[in-house]
Amino acid sequence: MSYKIGVADSMFARVAMFRIVKKALEDSMESGIKLERYTVPGVKDLPVACKKLLDNGCDICIALGMPGDKPIDKTCAHEASQGLIQTQLITNKHIIEVFVHLDEGENEKDLLQIVKKRTYDHTMNAIALLKGKNSLSKLAGKGVRQGMESVGGIE
Amino acid sequence: MSYKIGVADSMFARVAMFRIVKKALEDSMESGIKLERYTVPGVKDLPVACKKLLDNGCDICIALGMPGDKPIDKTCAHEASQGLIQTQLITNKHIIEVFVHLDEGENEKDLLQIVKKRTYDHTMNAIALLKGKNSLSKLAGKGVRQGMESVGGIE
Amino acid sequence: MSYKIGVADSMFARVAMFRIVKKALEDSMESGIKLERYTVPGVKDLPVACKKLLDNGCDICIALGMPGDKPIDKTCAHEASQGLIQTQLITNKHIIEVFVHLDEGENEKDLLQIVKKRTYDHTMNAIALLKGKNSLSKLAGKGVRQGMESVGGIE
Amino acid sequence: MSYKIGVADSMFARVAMFRIVKKALEDSMESGIKLERYTVPGVKDLPVACKKLLDNGCDICIALGMPGDKPIDKTCAHEASQGLIQTQLITNKHIIEVFVHLDEGENEKDLLQIVKKRTYDHTMNAIALLKGKNSLSKLAGKGVRQGMESVGGIE
Amino acid sequence: MSYKIGVADSMFARVAMFRIVKKALEDSMESGIKLERYTVPGVKDLPVACKKLLDNGCDICIALGMPGDKPIDKTCAHEASQGLIQTQLITNKHIIEVFVHLDEGENEKDLLQIVKKRTYDHTMNAIALLKGKNSLSKLAGKGVRQGMESVGGIE
Repeated sequence: MSYKIGVADSMFARVAMFRIVKKALEDSMESGIKLERYTVPGVKDLPVACKKLLDNGCDICIALGMPGDKPIDKTCAHEASQGLIQTQLITNKHIIEVFVHLDEGENEKDLLQIVKKRTYDHTMNAIALLKGKNSLSKLAGKGVRQGMESVGGIE
Repeated sequence: MSYKIGVADSMFARVAMFRIVKKALEDSMESGIKLERYTVPGVKDLPVACKKLLDNGCDICIALGMPGDKPIDKTCAHEASQGLIQTQLITNKHIIEVFVHLDEGENEKDLLQIVKKRTYDHTMNAIALLKGKNSLSKLAGKGVRQGMESVGGIE
Repeated sequence: MSYKIGVADSMFARVAMFRIVKKALEDSMESGIKLERYTVPGVKDLPVACKKLLDNGCDICIALGMPGDKPIDKTCAHEASQGLIQTQLITNKHIIEVFVHLDEGENEKDLLQIVKKRTYDHTMNAIALLKGKNSLSKLAGKGVRQGMESVGGIE
Repeated sequence: MSYKIGVADSMFARVAMFRIVKKALEDSMESGIKLERYTVPGVKDLPVACKKLLDNGCDICIALGMPGDKPIDKTCAHEASQGLIQTQLITNKHIIEVFVHLDEGENEKDLLQIVKKRTYDHTMNAIALLKGKNSLSKLAGKGVRQGMESVGGIE
Repeated sequence: MSYKIGVADSMFARVAMFRIVKKALEDSMESGIKLERYTVPGVKDLPVACKKLLDNGCDICIALGMPGDKPIDKTCAHEASQGLIQTQLITNKHIIEVFVHLDEGENEKDLLQIVKKRTYDHTMNAIALLKGKNSLSKLAGKGVRQGMESVGGIE
């Protein structure tokens, strides 16, 4: 089967996140999946970019962003997230939000590692979701954290 | 009569909540009810998963999630809840939100008990709502708490 | 003329609020008004319940709830209120929100009084709104508080 | 030309704000403009009232409210404002929100002055907006404050 | 090709932001682009103004605002931003939000510089977005900040 993943990224982000998506897709060995990219200034511009990608035939979107560390940036990220959820409800398609806040890492190296891992892992999640609603079921309730050590399940 | 309950769960959660729904349904002895499951990465992916389940013929949904204990996790849960309410208004069907925050329990054992009880009780609520708008009326105003000791009514 | 008021109430509430609505309606001596009730688990389930009541022929709704006193409960009430406003905009009908927060009273007796007065007064407001957009105009700007002593107008 | 301005006001407010709108309209000497009034209990009831006024032929609305000074009142005002913006997007018409918070004035006299000036000035803004999208352009960027001393532009 | 950029500005702002947009457009040497202006009282009036501009044939909008420095102003800006995102999802077109908060600068001169640079840079972004979804891709992940020194990418 053939799929198209929309990828929306921003100038505000400090890491070339799109490249990580591309790397993950290559590693997945899924030959039938193409990427369509849309670059915007900041996270608040991501919802309509994803809307256009999904309207334009993408089966799922990945929204890449790195919100800043000031209170106003937290508010922006919140507004963007609300818009991304609304977009999903309008289009009936998933948008995997990959946001890494600039204060999540202790230093730039640490931050880069979080971005790499979260973007990579969530690209794999997007690919899994393309295959149906139970692709991720075997991992449900396992405390999976993208970009962090997973915390495990409690039984 | 025959009904279908959609159940959306997540990889982020630390407990296999879907199993508890299944157990509650079995205990209810309702033979005409089937479950349809949809697993997503985290709580913010639940609204569109429920939307798809409800569009796909489910009569009601149960949205299972365990938001983290950091401020960003509280914001995520808030966004997810807003999306779940919007989904209900679009589809005209109930979504019973079963969220247990990771800081609700004093330890893992305590947390597990809350998850078990809240998920179980809310599955029973979902089954009751399938039977009509007055199924739960005898319990109205009684201070019922799912996952906690009920606090009782004031007269 | 004949009207139908939808009344949505919850199991989470600690007072039998529906009974107060019924009492107020009886006291109003309005013989042409009927009540239709819908009981849900908690306040976040009220928006879709009201949506269904209004779609089902109710002319106005009263949404009864008693949010808890923890921060998460305040968030739930906020989400419910947002959903109730959205429901009104979709249906073009009023929903009178009667929320009494569990920390509004100094003790249970005090709380019960607030619930009784606010529910009673707002039922009267709902009845007035059924009669047209200027029924309440004589009281505009008078600092009217339902469930509390009114604070009066400033001239 | 002939226009209709919808005016939604509330019982919760402490000042007869509708009268100020009327006074401003008279002072404007605009003979072709009529007012249509809708009175509701509190600010959260204003969005659907404005929706009905605008659906009923009003060209623009003025939403009058005086939110209280407690945290819950701030939340109510926020929800009302969100609803008023949604209403504008649905109807494609302006709603000029005239909210004066009860803690804006240092005393009742001060508060009354703010209410009078803000309501009066915003009524003039509403009249101006009826005349087209550039009626207010000469005042853009001038730091205009309704109900307060304007702060002026920076060049 | 020929494009129309809608520009919504406000009386509340303290800088003549529209002039900066005009200057940036002239500097861009793009001869096929016209501006259409809409002036409103404050930031909360911007969403419907942009909605009308976009419905009226504008290909993209720039929303100019300068929210105040009090908590209520932060809330207003948040509501305006949510409305601007909703407007984009309804119209399927971008709205570049150019908000400068009155407390962003250390003094009026500093504030003016931020306003000038952010408005100018974002006008260039709007022009770029008119040319397609990959016009800004070469700058993705570079830590670009409009109105501030860019912080650079991390590799």
